[in-house]
Amino acid sequence: MNDKNSASRRRRLSAFFAASLALLALGAASRAFAQEPGAAQAPGDNCIWVLTAGFLVMFMQAGFALLETGFCRAKNASHIFFMNFAVYFLGVAGYWACGFALQGPNSTGLVPLGLAAPGPGGGITLAGHFFDLYGRHGFFLDVSSSGMGIFALFLFQLMFMDTAATIPTGALAERWKTSNFLMFCVWMSALVYPLYAHWMWGGGWLSRLGADFGLGHGAVDFAGSSVVHLIGGSAALAGAWILGPRAGKYDKHGRAVPIPGHNLPMALLGIFILAFGWFGFNAGSTLNASEPRVALVEVNTVLASAAGAMGSLAYVFFKTRKFDPATTANGFLAGLVSITGACAFVPTWSAFLIGAVGGVLAGLASSVLENLLGVDDPVGAIAVHGAGGAWGLISVGLFADGTFGAGANGVGAAQYLGQAGRGVCGLFYGDPSQLGAQVVALLACLAWSMGACALFFKATQKLWGIRIPRELEQDGLDIPECGNLAYPEFPIRKV
Amino acid sequence: MNDKNSASRRRRLSAFFAASLALLALGAASRAFAQEPGAAQAPGDNCIWVLTAGFLVMFMQAGFALLETGFCRAKNASHIFFMNFAVYFLGVAGYWACGFALQGPNSTGLVPLGLAAPGPGGGITLAGHFFDLYGRHGFFLDVSSSGMGIFALFLFQLMFMDTAATIPTGALAERWKTSNFLMFCVWMSALVYPLYAHWMWGGGWLSRLGADFGLGHGAVDFAGSSVVHLIGGSAALAGAWILGPRAGKYDKHGRAVPIPGHNLPMALLGIFILAFGWFGFNAGSTLNASEPRVALVEVNTVLASAAGAMGSLAYVFFKTRKFDPATTANGFLAGLVSITGACAFVPTWSAFLIGAVGGVLAGLASSVLENLLGVDDPVGAIAVHGAGGAWGLISVGLFADGTFGAGANGVGAAQYLGQAGRGVCGLFYGDPSQLGAQVVALLACLAWSMGACALFFKATQKLWGIRIPRELEQDGLDIPECGNLAYPEFPIRKV
Amino acid sequence: MNDKNSASRRRRLSAFFAASLALLALGAASRAFAQEPGAAQAPGDNCIWVLTAGFLVMFMQAGFALLETGFCRAKNASHIFFMNFAVYFLGVAGYWACGFALQGPNSTGLVPLGLAAPGPGGGITLAGHFFDLYGRHGFFLDVSSSGMGIFALFLFQLMFMDTAATIPTGALAERWKTSNFLMFCVWMSALVYPLYAHWMWGGGWLSRLGADFGLGHGAVDFAGSSVVHLIGGSAALAGAWILGPRAGKYDKHGRAVPIPGHNLPMALLGIFILAFGWFGFNAGSTLNASEPRVALVEVNTVLASAAGAMGSLAYVFFKTRKFDPATTANGFLAGLVSITGACAFVPTWSAFLIGAVGGVLAGLASSVLENLLGVDDPVGAIAVHGAGGAWGLISVGLFADGTFGAGANGVGAAQYLGQAGRGVCGLFYGDPSQLGAQVVALLACLAWSMGACALFFKATQKLWGIRIPRELEQDGLDIPECGNLAYPEFPIRKV
Repeated sequence: MNDKNSASRRRRLSAFFAASLALLALGAASRAFAQEPGAAQAPGDNCIWVLTAGFLVMFMQAGFALLETGFCRAKNASHIFFMNFAVYFLGVAGYWACGFALQGPNSTGLVPLGLAAPGPGGGITLAGHFFDLYGRHGFFLDVSSSGMGIFALFLFQLMFMDTAATIPTGALAERWKTSNFLMFCVWMSALVYPLYAHWMWGGGWLSRLGADFGLGHGAVDFAGSSVVHLIGGSAALAGAWILGPRAGKYDKHGRAVPIPGHNLPMALLGIFILAFGWFGFNAGSTLNASEPRVALVEVNTVLASAAGAMGSLAYVFFKTRKFDPATTANGFLAGLVSITGACAFVPTWSAFLIGAVGGVLAGLASSVLENLLGVDDPVGAIAVHGAGGAWGLISVGLFADGTFGAGANGVGAAQYLGQAGRGVCGLFYGDPSQLGAQVVALLACLAWSMGACALFFKATQKLWGIRIPRELEQDGLDIPECGNLAYPEFPIRKV
Repeated sequence: MNDKNSASRRRRLSAFFAASLALLALGAASRAFAQEPGAAQAPGDNCIWVLTAGFLVMFMQAGFALLETGFCRAKNASHIFFMNFAVYFLGVAGYWACGFALQGPNSTGLVPLGLAAPGPGGGITLAGHFFDLYGRHGFFLDVSSSGMGIFALFLFQLMFMDTAATIPTGALAERWKTSNFLMFCVWMSALVYPLYAHWMWGGGWLSRLGADFGLGHGAVDFAGSSVVHLIGGSAALAGAWILGPRAGKYDKHGRAVPIPGHNLPMALLGIFILAFGWFGFNAGSTLNASEPRVALVEVNTVLASAAGAMGSLAYVFFKTRKFDPATTANGFLAGLVSITGACAFVPTWSAFLIGAVGGVLAGLASSVLENLLGVDDPVGAIAVHGAGGAWGLISVGLFADGTFGAGANGVGAAQYLGQAGRGVCGLFYGDPSQLGAQVVALLACLAWSMGACALFFKATQKLWGIRIPRELEQDGLDIPECGNLAYPEFPIRKV
Repeated sequence: MNDKNSASRRRRLSAFFAASLALLALGAASRAFAQEPGAAQAPGDNCIWVLTAGFLVMFMQAGFALLETGFCRAKNASHIFFMNFAVYFLGVAGYWACGFALQGPNSTGLVPLGLAAPGPGGGITLAGHFFDLYGRHGFFLDVSSSGMGIFALFLFQLMFMDTAATIPTGALAERWKTSNFLMFCVWMSALVYPLYAHWMWGGGWLSRLGADFGLGHGAVDFAGSSVVHLIGGSAALAGAWILGPRAGKYDKHGRAVPIPGHNLPMALLGIFILAFGWFGFNAGSTLNASEPRVALVEVNTVLASAAGAMGSLAYVFFKTRKFDPATTANGFLAGLVSITGACAFVPTWSAFLIGAVGGVLAGLASSVLENLLGVDDPVGAIAVHGAGGAWGLISVGLFADGTFGAGANGVGAAQYLGQAGRGVCGLFYGDPSQLGAQVVALLACLAWSMGACALFFKATQKLWGIRIPRELEQDGLDIPECGNLAYPEFPIRKV
């Protein structure tokens, strides 16, 4: 696994770089004259809303970077922050070149964004269940005929993808080889995320479980508890498992050794930025500034985050008799992750409950991962995004109260539960089959994301190695990988 | 005051926690089936505007956290940042459960947000002068019949309350017992803030000083110089006074010893975030995206902040011959606090003047508090929010120029100063009685906030103690209260 | 150059301060009764959009502050952050008092913002080619007759000016005398920026190169590659050249010594904040929420930033075999700077290409400045904003594809390139004369900004000195200039 002749590796990597850039340039150039400006439509309020929400989601990248860096050690701070930065811009390229074409546009946003409505509910090709090609193109944003709404949608969906892609940087931190990480960015942004997003949001097979197999309204995930967070969390799980724990994480008896982060205020600043950006994440997902649910979505988001923090604060206080900020912060995040899927479908009291359960769950999951499974996740990303995301997906199937989503995914409202205008209903509101759809989605998400990522890590491990040599890991990754310490003037007590 | 048998205390605290959560869950559950979805109204541009402004106000919490933590010492950084984080999510719970019901909706926002207009000007119950019960409910957002605008309003008002509640965390920093702080969050969010906000914004007695007693347009405070900042600042004053100064703050001759903050860039980043969020704070308070004053409000906000910074920079330069960033930053903030009440009522030159006076005033107040009154405020919160807020409230009664607020608070525009369409006028524009209303509000604010908070601190001091034992204070609160240092890998020269 | 009798200097500086404040107050007061409230117009969606975009641009100040401070040494961190803070509020005052009047309103935004349209294309006074006086006033925002849109425009344009003004604080960091810096803020905000902005955006001579001399649509710069970035970058170049390199930057053989920044995560957080704010910068420049180009502008912005980062990451990797975060960050920024001028005029593939070239160019320019010209720029501001800005201005003349800008700057669309409805076309789309206009603008921008700033620095150098005495520079500027260390509790290994 260790690089013997790193010079030749580096040469190969340079070639890989050069080839990638050349490919991108070539692909882009091929679009140069194909891209005719379509009859421009006024984007109107909805485009502006979706764009503004997209800006907020983009800013979440800063939150993740701070959170992850603050929760890791000073000797790796350059490397971790760099990964959070690089995943953003490499993800942009991968999603622009390929991911967006495979995912296709989110079907609910087409009309409000001034785009052509999808065809009549019935026909979809077999391939269309699994990926989109946006009328057989869409690569490098070759979507000329579709007006400007498509650019707003692209930007918004791009930022969602980047949120998912940045989650593993936390779980694999402090030992991940940069060259492997760079390839992973392309793998996530161009393939792993877009396919599942198509299944759930682009009219793919999960969304059609209702129309095709009578499972409620098909799988439903409002703003991405699974599409973004569970995809990211299970990719992180696959990676952290295969990469193995950090040097020194387990003592000779196999007991986990706590490794505190080097900068708690930095991590907590990240939490605030994430909470700020999450407003765009959840409310923007209406893709429609006139959707009356926007305000409820935000209130639910706020309540769930508060409940998650309170739940985990209580959990950790009962356990350690301390008011542990790090655990509380992760509970807060888990509350946000949990409500993301259900925020438009449930009343405020359910949101509070969903968030509280999510917060406690993240604490428990973290403990199970670390102590029972031996998976070392320096920042708790798997627990927060994985467990929280899974719970969020399931909670739709429990608490959705029927007031929203009538007619979604081609499921006629009239026939639904024998009541006209009835929206998505969970188990507690009369439709157990909706829970069935959610469970199918959960299994599909886990299988696809963990499978595709395990494949990536196993294959690249064989070919080029995925982990930093142990002697470099001891000293920190900043100098060997990035060439610069994060804090060159401050003496550090290395842990 | 010191905890002898802390184990039993902790056990009691755990019980308190469990009971609170149970209560919240119970209360929420009782709403479960009561909450029928009302006929949804399109929230339209105004809801989106109010929500977006609310996001910005929420982000101010990060600014306060950075400012306060940067201005305190490294040994307490975990604890201070945690308090700023916890006040946010506990405030959410307290305001959701109770505060919003007591405050009631801001009467100016009802119609633009698609809510039913308040009844004809005349009747209000005696109780209604002091608190609202939103048609006798509103606890746990039980406001089903009111459309979605109410959720936008709730979110916006919630963030204002949290801004007020976080102010004392700075003034009481480095010695406040966490358990007492947690109770205080509930006290502020559920009771202290909401009542005064009702008096000023919810149709309560202060707002009716004009209609009932002929004092101008009644007390007027556009975006909360008093409702948010003076409430927070005087709560901070009560707390800091009762808590007493930090160990080592005064030498044996009683002279104040300067204790510099541990991270100036962190504090100044907080300033920028606060200035950014303040845009939402002030302009969002129109609750109406079509209100032509929005742009002037923002320009006034910017000018006052600049003037506050210039005033305090000049003040500190004359005093110390240094360009002191910390003092300048607090002057900048004081400019913002000062203009908050008047920003819609005054022309730009007045805004500049109000800000400049606010900046200098904060510098003076800080000196008076520290040297004459012996009140130790590590971050200058009392000077900035207290003195700045008081000046902001009064400045409306001086500089309001009559171009805005016609008909506000049920004061018929036609009769006002014998001129049709005349808005709120201050002393310099012909209405001394408006200044009278502002002075009454100032006294009411001080009396209520200081009184209610002094009661809280005195009562809890007796019962459970409010201050960290001195030996723990010397070593820093991070380990005993939070279980983690903020910067475990960095050697610290303890001050 | 060194201050011998600093006491008398300081006294003079105090007098300068007092005089300035008095002047501001006087000027403002003279407006007091002149400023009649005009017939208010509803600002509508466009004002709200422009305001929101302005908030985002303001927040970029925090990004610059973090970036510059993180890239400099700990011993100067208070000073650098303070400069970034002070340039904001002093710029506000200078622009309010004078700059806005000289610049005049951006002519494209008048109608969408509810302001009177500019007069018929023909007449403009000779003076009007060089500066505006907004109908012979505009000082201290004396613009009463123009409705509220003007306040939104003022706020937006103010934030642009402040972005330009903050760029030199990075290039001159670690040796600039604070008193000189304070004067420079006024010079930039009141004169240097506003004049060039008038030439390009306010209907001045550069914008009329098309109508008057047949050069394409006249000089075109969508969101300020030159107006903001090149102005700032060339001011920085003039300043850094005259100030000379930092002590220790060059060894006795004249070779540049690398001086790494003290806090890389801080700098990278700045990058994220800048990218976030840039959304407002570029898309807000439509001044029109209904402009269909808004969404494309943002997508182009994102793609160019990603390409810039990828380009510079590849560049630095080939050079050093390390994934250098600092260089990559500057490349990312250079991509943003480069696309700023062209973002509305080009398709996505061009945006990617422009960004990639910009990223590599910044890396090369940085090397040329440091090694060939002996100009010491601690943060790379000249390379990023100067080289990137110049390339951005030129790239409009190459890649503009004719789909946007028909009729701009009074160039009738019908006659343009013999095609009706044809917008701005660059060299590759048939109009070499557009490139001519861009080159003229480039030369004018360089000559004006470098000339005016060289004059300022040379004159003030003679009069009061512009550089910190060498012995203070060695120890760091924080104590002598600001009176406080940035991190008083942390031991520093001074570099």
